[in-house]
Amino acid sequence: MAQALDQARQRNTAQEARLLIRAGRHTGHTAGLAHGYVQGNLCILPADYAGEFAAYCQRNPKPCPLIGMSAPGDPHLPTLANDLDIRTDLPRYRVFRDGELVDEPTDIRAIWREDLVTFVLGCSFSFEQALLEAGIPLRHIERGDNVAMYKTNIDTVPAGRFQGKMVVSMRPLKSADAIRAVQITSRFPNVHGAPVHIGFPELLGIDDLEQPYVGDPPRMREGELPVFWACGVTPQVAVEHARPPLCITHKPGAMVITDLLNASLSIL
Amino acid sequence: MAQALDQARQRNTAQEARLLIRAGRHTGHTAGLAHGYVQGNLCILPADYAGEFAAYCQRNPKPCPLIGMSAPGDPHLPTLANDLDIRTDLPRYRVFRDGELVDEPTDIRAIWREDLVTFVLGCSFSFEQALLEAGIPLRHIERGDNVAMYKTNIDTVPAGRFQGKMVVSMRPLKSADAIRAVQITSRFPNVHGAPVHIGFPELLGIDDLEQPYVGDPPRMREGELPVFWACGVTPQVAVEHARPPLCITHKPGAMVITDLLNASLSIL
Repeated sequence: MAQALDQARQRNTAQEARLLIRAGRHTGHTAGLAHGYVQGNLCILPADYAGEFAAYCQRNPKPCPLIGMSAPGDPHLPTLANDLDIRTDLPRYRVFRDGELVDEPTDIRAIWREDLVTFVLGCSFSFEQALLEAGIPLRHIERGDNVAMYKTNIDTVPAGRFQGKMVVSMRPLKSADAIRAVQITSRFPNVHGAPVHIGFPELLGIDDLEQPYVGDPPRMREGELPVFWACGVTPQVAVEHARPPLCITHKPGAMVITDLLNASLSIL
Repeated sequence: MAQALDQARQRNTAQEARLLIRAGRHTGHTAGLAHGYVQGNLCILPADYAGEFAAYCQRNPKPCPLIGMSAPGDPHLPTLANDLDIRTDLPRYRVFRDGELVDEPTDIRAIWREDLVTFVLGCSFSFEQALLEAGIPLRHIERGDNVAMYKTNIDTVPAGRFQGKMVVSMRPLKSADAIRAVQITSRFPNVHGAPVHIGFPELLGIDDLEQPYVGDPPRMREGELPVFWACGVTPQVAVEHARPPLCITHKPGAMVITDLLNASLSIL
């Protein structure tokens, strides 16, 4: 099994990674799998909530960049990958009932319903690849940490029962790298796009950068700017507020692997 | 005469502005004249220095973006404007001999020589128009001040006798405007392009932002980032170092007016 996983990593295609996961042979993080392919955040909701959530994403495109939305009951999203089955192709899921986490299964076929609508949102993995390829060092990746995330004082635009504060991720960068990072991430509006803020955590309601809401301390160094991007954890905060009877997400780090190339999301 | 000037301002074409200046009827600043048209910095050097200066510009494109270069002795630059005569079409010149300022005439026909080569460099007027049109306030323009400029500790890349530190201009911007300004000015590589630095004046060797090398104090406010762009004063520092026997520049603020539209310099 370890050998098959190593092979999938080496061969490095998205479909091979999905097949391995679908067969139950990989239940961990997807970072490092299917290098170069877009990975996405998952949010599955009953149809009764789907219209409002779609509107929420439309009104908050920086934290909630929608890259895929299914028909009710259809577990397939052929625009993301022809063979993708959203019920089996993620390593691990989180199941929330009335807003409470109740299970973390590796497969959701047993609880699938004909009214479930799948949303896939772009994630920062795609722009991080572009930053690394441009020679911009990212401390959390160098350290093997999770990126630092913070709940801000910025209200998102509500839509029906969905509302809440914006969550941001922060990467400490030297000034020249921060300028370059604005240029590079501006090309990727479908994976959060340009930063939402640079420089003053206190203006976002963040008291202490070394105490993130989610993720690991960023370990800022002198001469570095804190550069903040809108974060895909934002819709989770909105879902917590809406408390739908059922909601299924990916387990953090265990993402939807698509057949889209990261580079294909660049608008320039 | 005042009426003709008002008319030229209203009619707002570059050629009309040049004709007015050529006739000796406007000897002041060109800011506000020929709205929307590219204005440039002027540097005229003997042919013996021209190759080295061209190389200096090529090696330092952010402070020295070359938008026009003449043949030796030719006072015309048809790629900038068909009727442009560089000897008469600027409101006021500065004449340097062996690096010393010796005169500020309104016309240089009397000292024109067959070995003189004209260089025109892009200036920040062009990107400032794009920033203002995007709704980004610029304090020095609101106050009627000159932008603050600083000599940094950054060495330019030498070429022959030309060398020196980079001069930067600085505009105080709120974080969201700074991010937008990186995007907008990135589109204008021929007028200094993206900022060279954001945030830490001390890393550029600048002790006190309120005491600029040239221009007026910027009057920073809380919650503003200092955003630094490479500045067209940089080649003047290099020329001071080279001390050519003759050098003719524009008088600061009295620029070359071209027929190019600012928007035509945008690469996107």
